[in-house]
Amino acid sequence: MLEGPPLPPHVIDDVVLTALEEDAAHNDVTSAAIIEPGQWGRGTFVAKGDGVIAGLPVAAAAMTALDDEISFDTLVAEGQKVTDGTPIAEVEGRLAPILSCERVALNFLQRLSGIATLTREFVDAVQDTNAVILDTRKTTPGLRALERYAVRAGGGRNHRFALADGILIKDNHIEAAKQNGTPHLGDLVREVRRSAPHTLRIEIECTDVEQVAQALEGGADVILLDNMDVEGIRAALRVIDGRAQVEASGGVTLDNVEAIARTGVEFISVGRLTHSAPALDISLEVVPL
Amino acid sequence: MLEGPPLPPHVIDDVVLTALEEDAAHNDVTSAAIIEPGQWGRGTFVAKGDGVIAGLPVAAAAMTALDDEISFDTLVAEGQKVTDGTPIAEVEGRLAPILSCERVALNFLQRLSGIATLTREFVDAVQDTNAVILDTRKTTPGLRALERYAVRAGGGRNHRFALADGILIKDNHIEAAKQNGTPHLGDLVREVRRSAPHTLRIEIECTDVEQVAQALEGGADVILLDNMDVEGIRAALRVIDGRAQVEASGGVTLDNVEAIARTGVEFISVGRLTHSAPALDISLEVVPL
Amino acid sequence: MLEGPPLPPHVIDDVVLTALEEDAAHNDVTSAAIIEPGQWGRGTFVAKGDGVIAGLPVAAAAMTALDDEISFDTLVAEGQKVTDGTPIAEVEGRLAPILSCERVALNFLQRLSGIATLTREFVDAVQDTNAVILDTRKTTPGLRALERYAVRAGGGRNHRFALADGILIKDNHIEAAKQNGTPHLGDLVREVRRSAPHTLRIEIECTDVEQVAQALEGGADVILLDNMDVEGIRAALRVIDGRAQVEASGGVTLDNVEAIARTGVEFISVGRLTHSAPALDISLEVVPL
Amino acid sequence: MLEGPPLPPHVIDDVVLTALEEDAAHNDVTSAAIIEPGQWGRGTFVAKGDGVIAGLPVAAAAMTALDDEISFDTLVAEGQKVTDGTPIAEVEGRLAPILSCERVALNFLQRLSGIATLTREFVDAVQDTNAVILDTRKTTPGLRALERYAVRAGGGRNHRFALADGILIKDNHIEAAKQNGTPHLGDLVREVRRSAPHTLRIEIECTDVEQVAQALEGGADVILLDNMDVEGIRAALRVIDGRAQVEASGGVTLDNVEAIARTGVEFISVGRLTHSAPALDISLEVVPL
Amino acid sequence: MLEGPPLPPHVIDDVVLTALEEDAAHNDVTSAAIIEPGQWGRGTFVAKGDGVIAGLPVAAAAMTALDDEISFDTLVAEGQKVTDGTPIAEVEGRLAPILSCERVALNFLQRLSGIATLTREFVDAVQDTNAVILDTRKTTPGLRALERYAVRAGGGRNHRFALADGILIKDNHIEAAKQNGTPHLGDLVREVRRSAPHTLRIEIECTDVEQVAQALEGGADVILLDNMDVEGIRAALRVIDGRAQVEASGGVTLDNVEAIARTGVEFISVGRLTHSAPALDISLEVVPL
Amino acid sequence: MLEGPPLPPHVIDDVVLTALEEDAAHNDVTSAAIIEPGQWGRGTFVAKGDGVIAGLPVAAAAMTALDDEISFDTLVAEGQKVTDGTPIAEVEGRLAPILSCERVALNFLQRLSGIATLTREFVDAVQDTNAVILDTRKTTPGLRALERYAVRAGGGRNHRFALADGILIKDNHIEAAKQNGTPHLGDLVREVRRSAPHTLRIEIECTDVEQVAQALEGGADVILLDNMDVEGIRAALRVIDGRAQVEASGGVTLDNVEAIARTGVEFISVGRLTHSAPALDISLEVVPL
Repeated sequence: MLEGPPLPPHVIDDVVLTALEEDAAHNDVTSAAIIEPGQWGRGTFVAKGDGVIAGLPVAAAAMTALDDEISFDTLVAEGQKVTDGTPIAEVEGRLAPILSCERVALNFLQRLSGIATLTREFVDAVQDTNAVILDTRKTTPGLRALERYAVRAGGGRNHRFALADGILIKDNHIEAAKQNGTPHLGDLVREVRRSAPHTLRIEIECTDVEQVAQALEGGADVILLDNMDVEGIRAALRVIDGRAQVEASGGVTLDNVEAIARTGVEFISVGRLTHSAPALDISLEVVPL
Repeated sequence: MLEGPPLPPHVIDDVVLTALEEDAAHNDVTSAAIIEPGQWGRGTFVAKGDGVIAGLPVAAAAMTALDDEISFDTLVAEGQKVTDGTPIAEVEGRLAPILSCERVALNFLQRLSGIATLTREFVDAVQDTNAVILDTRKTTPGLRALERYAVRAGGGRNHRFALADGILIKDNHIEAAKQNGTPHLGDLVREVRRSAPHTLRIEIECTDVEQVAQALEGGADVILLDNMDVEGIRAALRVIDGRAQVEASGGVTLDNVEAIARTGVEFISVGRLTHSAPALDISLEVVPL
Repeated sequence: MLEGPPLPPHVIDDVVLTALEEDAAHNDVTSAAIIEPGQWGRGTFVAKGDGVIAGLPVAAAAMTALDDEISFDTLVAEGQKVTDGTPIAEVEGRLAPILSCERVALNFLQRLSGIATLTREFVDAVQDTNAVILDTRKTTPGLRALERYAVRAGGGRNHRFALADGILIKDNHIEAAKQNGTPHLGDLVREVRRSAPHTLRIEIECTDVEQVAQALEGGADVILLDNMDVEGIRAALRVIDGRAQVEASGGVTLDNVEAIARTGVEFISVGRLTHSAPALDISLEVVPL
Repeated sequence: MLEGPPLPPHVIDDVVLTALEEDAAHNDVTSAAIIEPGQWGRGTFVAKGDGVIAGLPVAAAAMTALDDEISFDTLVAEGQKVTDGTPIAEVEGRLAPILSCERVALNFLQRLSGIATLTREFVDAVQDTNAVILDTRKTTPGLRALERYAVRAGGGRNHRFALADGILIKDNHIEAAKQNGTPHLGDLVREVRRSAPHTLRIEIECTDVEQVAQALEGGADVILLDNMDVEGIRAALRVIDGRAQVEASGGVTLDNVEAIARTGVEFISVGRLTHSAPALDISLEVVPL
Repeated sequence: MLEGPPLPPHVIDDVVLTALEEDAAHNDVTSAAIIEPGQWGRGTFVAKGDGVIAGLPVAAAAMTALDDEISFDTLVAEGQKVTDGTPIAEVEGRLAPILSCERVALNFLQRLSGIATLTREFVDAVQDTNAVILDTRKTTPGLRALERYAVRAGGGRNHRFALADGILIKDNHIEAAKQNGTPHLGDLVREVRRSAPHTLRIEIECTDVEQVAQALEGGADVILLDNMDVEGIRAALRVIDGRAQVEASGGVTLDNVEAIARTGVEFISVGRLTHSAPALDISLEVVPL
Repeated sequence: MLEGPPLPPHVIDDVVLTALEEDAAHNDVTSAAIIEPGQWGRGTFVAKGDGVIAGLPVAAAAMTALDDEISFDTLVAEGQKVTDGTPIAEVEGRLAPILSCERVALNFLQRLSGIATLTREFVDAVQDTNAVILDTRKTTPGLRALERYAVRAGGGRNHRFALADGILIKDNHIEAAKQNGTPHLGDLVREVRRSAPHTLRIEIECTDVEQVAQALEGGADVILLDNMDVEGIRAALRVIDGRAQVEASGGVTLDNVEAIARTGVEFISVGRLTHSAPALDISLEVVPL
């Protein structure tokens, strides 16, 4: 269900140990005061709302970091839709470390599932079109690899990971080029083509049809239509006429995404997938044994 | 306006460098292909919506990390309310590193301002009451110090930072104690008092009036009323009658927070301040010089 | 025998690898020049004095870090009393890495056992009283988690771990408050109660009975009697009369600790447990096989 | 007064930031509740006992890490003897970060000064002889560079830093060589000479005169006389007769060090300099401004 | 002279501190035994052969890391050609840290200048053609950013930085696709186009004209001609006829690079620029002051 | 075949994970677009030239870091000579991670084998003499431990690892001493002997017979003859006459090394072993299963 490579073990371990340190999981004074060292427990992660699950390998690493005798078994797959009450995973072992790591595991699982859930809503909204839902670089600092993984788990695709792996000429670049004596976007695209890495296509942000025409003349590979309404996108697509791929971006919501998709754009990138997705509510229900 | 200590320099530097690495800011192929090495620019961070600003010291560190000759001047204070169009800060220097660091600076600023904004809405909603709005441990892994700072910038207060700095007996602990032969919450509170660090008060989660009565009998310092409706909270407060402080938690929204506050609880903790706050839209508008 | 959670694996691994790097254990030129790669050996860690053992899991990690085929078996439990000559643990495997890691393992084991031993002496000295022996924040930079663990192995209890998990108003704070217009300790305690985290009790350092009376009037949870003699402590306890818990601190030695404990104070905190405990002498006796 | 290079800035910064993180200095809830953000203060580090000061550059880094507007001025030099009441350094700036960093600065200063003080006592005890006091590898894990620096501040000299920078054939190596068919220490020294780095001298531990004679026959550069009494050392020195340098080690105390030195050994190594030195008592006395 | 962004300060600092630690620059026992703490010196970095200089900012960071009062002044620019005897940079300050950091500074400077020098030789060899000399991912682990920077200083250009920023279908991928039922390279290119990031062009490795024809049919953006001789490259170019960009790779030497370039390929990638460039000999000549 | 200790696991893991991060191995967009998640493959590392293999444990760690179900089996030993076409190791498992880690594994293996190969050529050239081939500190920053290991795999021996583990008085030190009033090398050697660590021998660089005579007079342990021709070395050896060990250094090549060795020097140190060894060509040939 999930496309693209899994999260590598050392990436998971790094963020998990950082988070456990941050939460002082090894110094859980409440559990230390109550739980007997030898007490055993079993817990079930349960969805408390409808959504799409992502982050189980991260939760597994979090639950077993303090005690490798704890078992963690998944009951659903990454990217699977669940409804309120669905059991997601089971954990069993010494009770104290289970309780000490619970919050960290949930923080990852809720955030990543929140992103997967919102992504899935966008993907479902455009399912009868050819549009692909993309993420952006508007991710949580330090968690980009995880959040992009969650987007894929929700059925989305990834835009460039970082500034190194994509040419995207934006308004500020266009202004700078104008200042440098290159006001025509076609000239700018050609200039970039000369010096940019030969492995990268050239995408350029346009805000009106005139810019689109110039960019096409220069041979842009992808036109990003920024903050255009559906009418504007249609007009731009008529000009482009298949000579470049088209990405729409800016102000995309669940209300307007289907209309945008029906214009025929190939890609719709949505910042809120990662910068504003609400967490999916998930809880850990524990039974002492 | 902001209570509590500022973010320490090394904490800011750590997260900023991690984020710049993650975004390959030093390998910004687009700016490298367009911007002349000697080209200068000035940029203004501008709010694109109403909200509360938090994170300017982090943005400052991000904008100057690649080139310490770049100047960064704040135009508003941390915790200040702004409206759509308000200029927030100005940056000036070599244009290429300004553009290369823009996204990282914005990612921090938008997230932290989003948290401060949502916090302020909750704080404003209870302003005619004595209730204090608290955050929770439901924060983004790796960013807890920053997110708690943003909560304070929004006028909220911080709950315990980590498992080491607060006793909070939750349902899973109560179940474990029952299994161990301590079914009465008063006994449990006394037992915890004996072995917990003497610097910590004892807070215990109760879901009904019977539990509240037991906890009080054992001398609990704070009663956390979990997921109770306003009627239930009122009933509990009558039983408590000033013998413990009271925190309400669970399912708190902007719709019900004022009603909860009017019951007279001292504290209302709100997970969504950190786990589900939408980003505040902010942009950087650059003028090449 | 040991109360509180065990040391988490990643905390042990971090300090152990740092120490092995520091000692260039992987570049042990002496062993490389003498020991055959295939030569096998068995070693016994033996106490060379009377004391209490702490740190075996750290020693185990150190002895097996370079070669995971080395076995490490403990012969005593953490926190167990041993006498001169008692075998503590056995190690067996390739001889070269055993010799290369010996010093690091011993450095941890001797220091932590030294702390546990001194703690046990204090605990034993007050065994017929109700006083609890506490550590302080006067620990070795970087090793606080391990040293507090050793205190618990010696039968002591832990004071606050860090500045975040306890309110302790000390003389310098009292001076600052006086300067700010709050000379009365009762007012100060009330002021702190208003703004400090609600999960924390308020402890305040007093040096005379007048300060004690003021602090009590403000509702202090714990009174720290700083550097008082037994007579002074008795006088303070009469004033306190059960209205707050009491911690005695400052200048506590094995000579005076019992007398202090007999006054009836709940807690006695002893800086020297961690800042001045002499190492317990332990050696590794190896037999080449 | 101090021989050898100063501590490099990045080494100091590393340990200081680790220690401040460990102590949650940026989250000092007590100071946050009491000290006004704009309140200023001046503090004096004062010796509370007689001793030798070491670690001022580390204390300086600790006191200024959270706020680089804090000034730190030393009043004595590294390695200087002080008496009870001597002011050591002055700090001035915002009061809150001064109080938040106080404990970490003191923890370093007290430990390193404790080591320098004990070292100086040993050095003074042998001042009328030619013996040099050396440290050992029995240091606190993670702090070896600092502790060796403190030994030099106390007038001692450093033994090898790590296993890579000295050949020291100890009893366990001798046993292994015997097992491998090289029972004679002279043969062993020659064998080691053939394969060990040519930049290193060969030191070998001997416990009786017979071993000494064998080692000399093989051309050992340094003979370590382990745990011998003064009589035994004298006998060994007669055998050695200037053909090798001599280090005495094992069970060296302030009571016997002068007698050992008077035998004429060049070096006396003392593990307790670093593994058992009690901290020097130092306090920070603050005046709010 | 150098195209592309400078090396960011934190990247330089990271590698420099790692290298100084590795060399124990703060524990330089030779300089400590000879150089007076107050002794001053001036040094000149001098080329001992003809070449192109790269890495001066790294050398500057290395020379000033232990003592920020040391001055470092460059006498040539990055990417400048020098001849045997050319002074490159001057350093002045305390003599001990200058000598302690010398080797690390030289190790960086010699390696990076070696890469720049070899790159310049390849660039000069093709100067009358349109071919661009590219590096590869065959770099020293941990130093890729620096080595690619050195390639640019030598007049070369950079291929993709990492696996994330370029699609390059190689022989092993082609074999795997064949196994999966996609034997035709045109089908493979189309398949990759569907799922690969839309910001990336598609480059594919071909070893004969038939593969080239298939790849073109699928719309490949760049054809990598692997290990073909000049005759083969000419034949392939006739087939390609401007429909794709062309990179030649494999077995490129200073002997054959001009002939390859004269075929008209746009790019020639040369692994030996980074995996086999000999160091440029540079020395530091010091005058004590 | 390899002398000295193996590379410790944590050292290997550190450099391997750094390299995989650097290459974005977990974000291999090409393999992700082509290889089925369940597709399996087998690969053989094959030498593409004659040489000596070193670095197989590092390659093994690289190949299994993303997927621990991948098997890695060596077909030759570390330090073994191979010829063009020799299979070196086999890997089997999921195909995608095999291809994603290939480049990193090869980068280590080619570099380390290149060093071992060049070392072996020097060692073979002096095989009929008593001279030992040594490396220098002219290593790649960050990889010294690995590169010295490769030298040993090639039959060479290691000079001092770092500035802490060898006294080597070089021309710049001699100049400084002259400036300080110690122009005679014999006086300088005696002075260094007094203050240097007693575990270290004293090596001094001499450029003529007069310096050699002075150094011998002071008791130097090792004379480094710097950049002398064979005639000069012979003259120096006659003066030395067995009273010190002798190392020749500077300008040593495969052309002159045998002649230098035949003079009778004990050690010949060769910077180019590590700073200029060309990589050994090795490829991974994969068969999808």
